[in-house]
Order: sequence, then C-alpha cells, then structure tokens
Amino acid sequence: MNCLEDLLNDQLPTAEDQNKLQSIATGLIREIGLICKTEKIDANAVEVGSTSKNTNLKSSDIDIFITFSKSYPVALIEKKGLEIGHRILKNGTEKYAEHPYVSGYVDGVKVDVVPAFRIKEGERIVSTVDRTPLHTIYVNSRTNNKMVHDIRLLKIFLKKINVYGSEIAKSGFSGYLCELAIISFGSFDKFMEYSAKLKGKMIIPENCKTKFNEPVIIIDPVDPTRNAGAAVSEENLSKLKLAAKLYTSNRCDILFDTVPEVHHNRETTIKVFTVKKPDIIDDIIYPQAVRLKKKIFDILERSGFMPVSFELYVGNDIEILIEYLIEKLPDVKKHMGPPVESCESIKFIDSWRGNKRLMRGPYIIGQRIYVDARIMHTEMEQIVRDELTQEDIGKNLNSLKNDIKVLSGDKINDLQVTKNFYSKYLF
Amino acid sequence: MNCLEDLLNDQLPTAEDQNKLQSIATGLIREIGLICKTEKIDANAVEVGSTSKNTNLKSSDIDIFITFSKSYPVALIEKKGLEIGHRILKNGTEKYAEHPYVSGYVDGVKVDVVPAFRIKEGERIVSTVDRTPLHTIYVNSRTNNKMVHDIRLLKIFLKKINVYGSEIAKSGFSGYLCELAIISFGSFDKFMEYSAKLKGKMIIPENCKTKFNEPVIIIDPVDPTRNAGAAVSEENLSKLKLAAKLYTSNRCDILFDTVPEVHHNRETTIKVFTVKKPDIIDDIIYPQAVRLKKKIFDILERSGFMPVSFELYVGNDIEILIEYLIEKLPDVKKHMGPPVESCESIKFIDSWRGNKRLMRGPYIIGQRIYVDARIMHTEMEQIVRDELTQEDIGKNLNSLKNDIKVLSGDKINDLQVTKNFYSKYLF
Repeated sequence: MNCLEDLLNDQLPTAEDQNKLQSIATGLIREIGLICKTEKIDANAVEVGSTSKNTNLKSSDIDIFITFSKSYPVALIEKKGLEIGHRILKNGTEKYAEHPYVSGYVDGVKVDVVPAFRIKEGERIVSTVDRTPLHTIYVNSRTNNKMVHDIRLLKIFLKKINVYGSEIAKSGFSGYLCELAIISFGSFDKFMEYSAKLKGKMIIPENCKTKFNEPVIIIDPVDPTRNAGAAVSEENLSKLKLAAKLYTSNRCDILFDTVPEVHHNRETTIKVFTVKKPDIIDDIIYPQAVRLKKKIFDILERSGFMPVSFELYVGNDIEILIEYLIEKLPDVKKHMGPPVESCESIKFIDSWRGNKRLMRGPYIIGQRIYVDARIMHTEMEQIVRDELTQEDIGKNLNSLKNDIKVLSGDKINDLQVTKNFYSKYLF
Repeated sequence: MNCLEDLLNDQLPTAEDQNKLQSIATGLIREIGLICKTEKIDANAVEVGSTSKNTNLKSSDIDIFITFSKSYPVALIEKKGLEIGHRILKNGTEKYAEHPYVSGYVDGVKVDVVPAFRIKEGERIVSTVDRTPLHTIYVNSRTNNKMVHDIRLLKIFLKKINVYGSEIAKSGFSGYLCELAIISFGSFDKFMEYSAKLKGKMIIPENCKTKFNEPVIIIDPVDPTRNAGAAVSEENLSKLKLAAKLYTSNRCDILFDTVPEVHHNRETTIKVFTVKKPDIIDDIIYPQAVRLKKKIFDILERSGFMPVSFELYVGNDIEILIEYLIEKLPDVKKHMGPPVESCESIKFIDSWRGNKRLMRGPYIIGQRIYVDARIMHTEMEQIVRDELTQEDIGKNLNSLKNDIKVLSGDKINDLQVTKNFYSKYLF
C-alpha cells in the first residue's frame, strides 16, 4: 500500500470536509420533508451517492433523491421534482438524465436534486434511478470503517490508472462497483490479489452462473437481473489486471511512472479529422464519433493508404487522429480483365484502346488479361470525403459530414488528440 | 489469312534457298558416310530438324545427326562424334547439350553435327536426342505440300505473337509441336479455330486420357510416354488462345498492333537488381534467375515495401526489375507483447524501459500490451542483401549474391528489362 500514500493524502476528505457535507445534506432533506408535508405530497427526501455511504473522495457532490409514491404518474413527479429543486436550490439549473432535475450549489458544494419512485428491495422499478436508494441501504448495511477506507483507496487507485468512471467516453468502473468489489473481497489488498491473478472475464460473485457476456460481470445485489459492470470495456479491465499485478509485485515504479520522452519522428503520415461536437450528451454523440473514426480508418484501409493506428478525443471538437503509411497513392493500378478464353476478352481490349487512363498493356499474366490504368482520385482527403457521403455515421454526425476539416503538420500540434496519441502509455 | 501475307513473304524460303540447303546437307551426309565406311564405324548420317521435313523458315540451320549402333558405349560415340564433326566442319566449335557436339558454318549456313544412338520406333532410347530422327520419319510420312506450307505459316504466326521456341527462357511452342498441330488438325485455319475456342488445357489428340498435368499436353506419336508440349507455359498458351481468337475474328488490327505510347510517370518506385550472368547454359541459369526474382519479390513483400510487379530479363546480365509502393519503410513498427494477464507482462514492460528503440508506449489495446518500436534496417537494398544471405537461389547464383547491384533512376533507362517492363503488351 506504500505507493498509494501520497495519493491518499491528496484525495481523502478530512473530518471537517465530511461534517460540512453532512450538515448541508441534513438541512436539505429537512427542508424537502417540510415542503412535502405542507403540500401533502407522498414523498421522502433521501441522500444517495458516495456521500451517503461515506465512500466519497474530497470535493464530492451531494445527491439528494426525492422518492415519490409509485401511485403518482411520471409527469407529476417530474414537475414536482423540478419545483421543489428550484425552491431549495436558489440559482439552480435544470439538467436532463432519465428525468429532468435541478443542479445547484450550496456553500460551494454542488448538489443535484433528482426525482425518483420509492420502491422496496425486490420490487419492480419504474425508472432505473429508482434503484439508487437501495444501493445506499445495501452498502451501508455491509461496510465498516476499514472497508469504507478501502473503497476510497480503490477509487483513488482506479482514478490513477485512468479507469474510474462509468460514463461512455470512459467506460470504466463506477463508484458502486468499487463498493461491491470491497464488500465481496473484504479489503483492497484482497481485491488486488484477485485482480492480479484473474484470467479472462471478471465475474463477481466468483463462480456464479450468468447469462451476461460483457468483460466485467458484477451482479447488482439489489437487482440480480442487472450487470452493474456492463459499462466497463475490455481494455479497462486489462488495465486493472496489469495495475493489480504491478501493485502486488511492489512495482510502483512502473505503476506511477511518467510517460517516457516522446518521439515525433515516426516517418509516417499523421492527419487529424476534426468537426465541432454538436451540443448533445456524450451518451449519444460518443458512439457516433467512434463510428466516424472506424469508417475513416476503413476507407483508408480499403483505398490502400495502410493506416496503422488512430486516436479519438471528444472535447469541444471531435478529434480523430489517423496514422498511415502511404502518403500518396500511386497513379497506377493493376486492373484485372477477363480470362483470355472468355468471350469478353476482345471487348476488354477494345475498351482500353485509346483510353486516356491506360498506362501499360493490355498484357497477359497466366490465364488473364490485365491493364495498368491511371487512377483519378489519389488524394486521401478527397477519397475520404467522397466515400463518407455513402456511409451512415449516425443521425447527428451525418449532417456534419461536410464540416469535417482535415488538419496536418503544425496545425495538429496543440490538439488534445495529438497529445494523447504521442503520450499513449500504460494507464 | 490476309493479315499474314506480308509476314509470309518475309520468312518463307525460296526454291533457291531450299536447293542450297539440300545440297549442303547431302554433301555432308555423303562425307560422313565415307568416313564411317573407311573407319569401319557402325553409324549413319541423317538430316534431322526442320530442313529435313521441308518445314524450315528462311535462314534456317542444318542439323545432321550421326546415329551410332547402340552397341557402342556413350563415351565412344561422344569422342567419335566430335572427331567426325571437326573433320567435316573446318573451324567448327564444340558446344554442349546432352552430348558435346560440333557447330560450324558451310557456305554461310550454320550446321550442327550431333552424335546419337540409332533406334527404331518403339525401341527404348538411350539419350533423349535419339528420338529426333524418328520425328523426321513420322512428319515426312504424314505431310503433303499444303500441310508443309501451313506448318511454316504456324511457325511464323507463333513467332509473331512471341511464343515460338521451346528453350526455357521462352517456354513456347517448338517446331515439332507446330508439325504435330497441323498433322492433327489438317490445316492452319482448323488449328486456329480449335485454339480460338479452346477452354483450359490444350490436349492433343483431343479427348485422349493422360496422366500429364502441364497446360499443353501433346502426346509424342513416336513415344506416347512423352508430352511433347511439356515446355509450354500457361501464359504462352493464353497468348495463343487470344491470338487465335483475334485471327478468326479478323482482328488483325489488334493482333499486329504496335505497343502504345509508354507512360513513365507511375508514381511508384522502380529498381533493377542486376548481376553478370555466369557463363552457363540457360537451362541451368534461367531457373535460378527466376528463383532470385521470386526471393527478392518475397523479401520486399514480407518487409512491407508492397511490391506490385516485376520483370525478368536474362541477357549478358540477369536483370530483375521490381516495382513497389513504399519507397522508405516507416521508422516505427507496432510490436505486439503478451496479454496483460500473462506472467510475461511485467517482464515485457521492463525489457522496453529505457530501450533506445522505444518510440511510444508500452500501451494496452484490448487484452494485450504493445509498444511502437524504432526499426533499424529501413533501407530496401540493405534488407534485401541481408535476407538473401539466408536464401538458397541455386548453386551458380548463390556465389554471386555479393555481386548484385541495385540500380534506379536514369541508370535503368537503357536496360532491356526496363524497356520490356514499360512496353509490356499483349504478345
């Protein structure tokens, strides 16, 4: 654990931090309770998220759920949720997840007030957020102080190796997965030992039979039909396995190594395709960006540019870096004609006589006639633009195909995707 | 037949030509007969080859065989063959085929005097040349004046489309095959009609069952265990098929077309590997040159230079032209390491730390660790030289590997292989 000490000191909240968060949360819950009572709404306010389980790191948000009776229609809880949210969070702004909700600041701490339905363990949920209060109850009933400390440690560790966060662009481990991991294995070190030796998929509980097929399968104890680990990518599981191996082998020199000196003289061609990111949530735009990257890579591959690697970054812009070997396609392509013995052979020869594209031939190799013909589109950018018009990238990016810019040379130096590309390293 | 008239006029021998050849041959045969009689050697002199069958073209050689009794040992007939050859051909020089023989000039006509064993049809041959006198007997017994004319026409036609000659560098049709073709089909036009419609292998007699597997199977009537067409390449059969199609379709405009304008601006890289041809007969050196060409092409392919075409020419030098797309390999290569979960993963990382060849990484993709590493030998010429040292090209060229020169730019313009490459055309 020695390698993690510095990190712990940086990111563990102090007793004072925790007291402040607790007093804000308690105040808000009391306020919402009063409003519901006054207005005769059958709803409770509950604290959920990491602060409710004492597993939060420094600078954590507070999540307050207003859990309504299942007898209310969805439209009503959404309307009442926003109303109450605005009443208790002056200057709050509305945001959109499964339901709209209000997000604001209290004493410098970010607070989200989210409506949900109140359900009991085993009861059918109405919206996916309805489970969240049950997670708090489950985790609090299974953890002690040592385990809470180890959950925080695990979060810090996963952040350090860049696999923490379940949002789609990250595809890493959520805070709830960290809690389940420590509850299952009892301690950070035991979970590390397990991960260091793990072959193949991560399945928790170990040996459980499952219909899920993702790389990480962690059954949600409050709803066994759900894989709480579905969002984790294979690559991030690989990173955890390697990091755990390094940790249990006391190889923090590698685990916390800095990226080695960057070499730019790769003698390849590197270009960046970039387009402004539409103002749409990542869950929707990120998969389209991934598809655009794949299409560009495929076009370069089938056109003969020999792409070798790529990097995708989604910030204010979508930035797709492609590295490839053939800077300019040859003007000439060997074009296969019919077998000499076919009825088409003389037609083929006639069709190429006097053709301006003819570079050499027709000539015979083996049983067939060939010509070397001049190719018209040899410019990479034009080929990609032409072929992309035929491709379905997804609703939002389809309409932006014409806005894609292609950058190279000095113009790509300051892009985040370029930095990520050159500094690609273990974690 | 109209398209062939000019060719015929150029290459058909006149009555005067034929009389001259006949009188030279008769004189030589009489002289050898006298020598054998005087020296009590059991041998006859016979004229073989095209002049003996009246199927020769203008400027033909004369072939005289001295056929010895099978009771003599090989060493003796070789010794006596040279002796007699030198006696009748003043200033003759010795050459080497299956047996050594004497070649010289009589009245400006080239004459070869070759020893062989005398056999009857169906008897077992001792050396392969022993069959030759039987071919003369067979052809003369099956041809009339019209057929002899058509045989000459076929030879001229095959010469024109560049598939005449059974020597290994040509891999075309021999004169004897032309004779067998006309004997089988009766006339030039019938053989053209057959060839124009032929699908797949050429098998003569048609519908005969055969164990042979070459593209052209023409059973030797004087020795049915022999495929007289074994030397013909698939490509030359293809050329004959196409030419016959053009001839029977009256498309002499294509058949006798000249090579179209040559384009040199192919935007590819073209280099010529060249080495002095050792003073060894083509039968031995040509297959080694083909192997060298194939090895160079394979090395370029597996090293990533993307070769697309080649041309081989064997003259005073062996000239191998290779056209390829990647002029210079990138300095960097993606190098696959072990899966993260393997015991080797940390070793792999350690082995690359501080390694001067490391360009980027190690990094994780999917389940594995990779590095981008700098490659040392990126120069095509050096890679080929290094890898050729490991390759077996054949006895004679193996010892010349270090003498191979690599030419490019203006230095290749005047080479025959370069001319052949750019002017590659139907025939």
